[in-house]
Amino acid sequence: MSVDRVHELRELIAPLVVSPGRSVHLARDFDPAFYDGQVSKDGAAEALAWSIELLSDYQIRLAAQDHYGLLVVIQAIDAAGKDSTIKHVMSGVNPQGVDVHSFKVPSQHELDHDFLWRYQQALPERGKIAIFNRSHYEEVLVVRVHPELLVRQHLPPEAVEGDVWSRRYQQINRWEHYLVDNGIRVVKLFLNVSKGEQRRRFLDRIDDPTKHWKFSAADVAERAHWDAYQQAFEAMLSHTSTEWAPWHVIPADHKWFARLAAAAVITNELVRIDPQFPVLDDAARTAMAEARRGLQAEG
Amino acid sequence: MSVDRVHELRELIAPLVVSPGRSVHLARDFDPAFYDGQVSKDGAAEALAWSIELLSDYQIRLAAQDHYGLLVVIQAIDAAGKDSTIKHVMSGVNPQGVDVHSFKVPSQHELDHDFLWRYQQALPERGKIAIFNRSHYEEVLVVRVHPELLVRQHLPPEAVEGDVWSRRYQQINRWEHYLVDNGIRVVKLFLNVSKGEQRRRFLDRIDDPTKHWKFSAADVAERAHWDAYQQAFEAMLSHTSTEWAPWHVIPADHKWFARLAAAAVITNELVRIDPQFPVLDDAARTAMAEARRGLQAEG
Repeated sequence: MSVDRVHELRELIAPLVVSPGRSVHLARDFDPAFYDGQVSKDGAAEALAWSIELLSDYQIRLAAQDHYGLLVVIQAIDAAGKDSTIKHVMSGVNPQGVDVHSFKVPSQHELDHDFLWRYQQALPERGKIAIFNRSHYEEVLVVRVHPELLVRQHLPPEAVEGDVWSRRYQQINRWEHYLVDNGIRVVKLFLNVSKGEQRRRFLDRIDDPTKHWKFSAADVAERAHWDAYQQAFEAMLSHTSTEWAPWHVIPADHKWFARLAAAAVITNELVRIDPQFPVLDDAARTAMAEARRGLQAEG
Repeated sequence: MSVDRVHELRELIAPLVVSPGRSVHLARDFDPAFYDGQVSKDGAAEALAWSIELLSDYQIRLAAQDHYGLLVVIQAIDAAGKDSTIKHVMSGVNPQGVDVHSFKVPSQHELDHDFLWRYQQALPERGKIAIFNRSHYEEVLVVRVHPELLVRQHLPPEAVEGDVWSRRYQQINRWEHYLVDNGIRVVKLFLNVSKGEQRRRFLDRIDDPTKHWKFSAADVAERAHWDAYQQAFEAMLSHTSTEWAPWHVIPADHKWFARLAAAAVITNELVRIDPQFPVLDDAARTAMAEARRGLQAEG
């Protein structure tokens, strides 16, 4: 599998990265309907297939080397395409090397722990890729938009003194830094959908009986908080895009481009890790030669 | 996706099922090199692709209905093709709906629990498929062939009195019965490879540097226990193939046929479950109609 075309992925990704320290204003800085003018819709399908093949190839080496794990965080508002991005980008990769975790409303047992605890349980092993469909960032998104959820977390008074969100950004940044320092790479994708496109997708779900199970009237009601969510996303992007784990803002109004961009970010990180098949040490080489002689003697 | 061809899958599976109560003698009853004479190698690739497409389609409905889970148990001796079967049958299915668990040597923490405990932690949620790459059956296979492993389990004396393996078969059967009674279906595949084919595959691994990471001299040394493993497999198949969770013996010398047969068994079980998209109740229908009006009024 050639990596000659990796520069194409990198060019595609470059405008989507949030530089650490940058103050993000979504409406000004990131167009949800953006797509790379160099890539046609047909060309995107071909590039996506190629990117997934490369991803799949590197996943095998990631498992073989067994030094690094890869955590892919996907955040977005409802109907931005989290599920379908995961389906289209990760189908085709050996499911033995990929775990997808969807975080729902926390249980009482989870709420009785610190806010990062339940996400830590789901981290990837070395050699594996874990996808977080929603993630620890919910703790500075839905919890920020609905502060009554913070009350449910039973925090002692000193833990919610001052600016609790700034404290959480710092705590999250430090935790991710620790992970990356220990070989668990962190890739973060924010799927950026417009309010109009979300409306169209909700109406599609209502009109398609095979999509009713994904429909929730509560999700539509959350549109009343659209602006509060946009502000929470902007604060998250501005404060948690770091050198070790930068955010990528994926334009999500065009699904074909969103899938290609998501695949490009994930594949590029695996290329950066560049895992290699392990080289046997002398003892293993000797054991293997003995095993070969034994097997051949049987024949 | 048409199910017109499901009878093809059922005809393929029929000779592979171990009837409950049957006393299995592998060398006499199941040829590792068997393949269905009705299916050519090219035809098998087409049938496999079709079966996986059907599997993928049913998995979506399994998730939508959210009543049933599916546990797929895969057991076999080393190099029989467990990993590659999982890769080829389950790649293409949405990884969000499939979890693969590979059970390694148990940790001290796991050994401090009852023998089924660690497998219970990995059971599928409703709406999901879990693949056990090795499973609770290791507890009557490797542990039976190497009884010193049973000593490591710290069992009290009364738990190992008499015929511990017969007790385990019964305990496993009852546990699986409980699971099936509660909507977690259990499908069991034994990949049946010949001693000669295992030898060829080990030699292939030795000759291919990209496969060295999968090679273990200890696996080759286990060949000294080949007959003991065959006997343990026969006892397992004879005592744990039940009405609610029968074993399928998958001839594994021809990978192309093994993959098709494995896909056929898994797909057929999903067709048997026949999950349906949920029908909305009146309250949900009213909420949806209100949501539609609200969304349309915005436009």
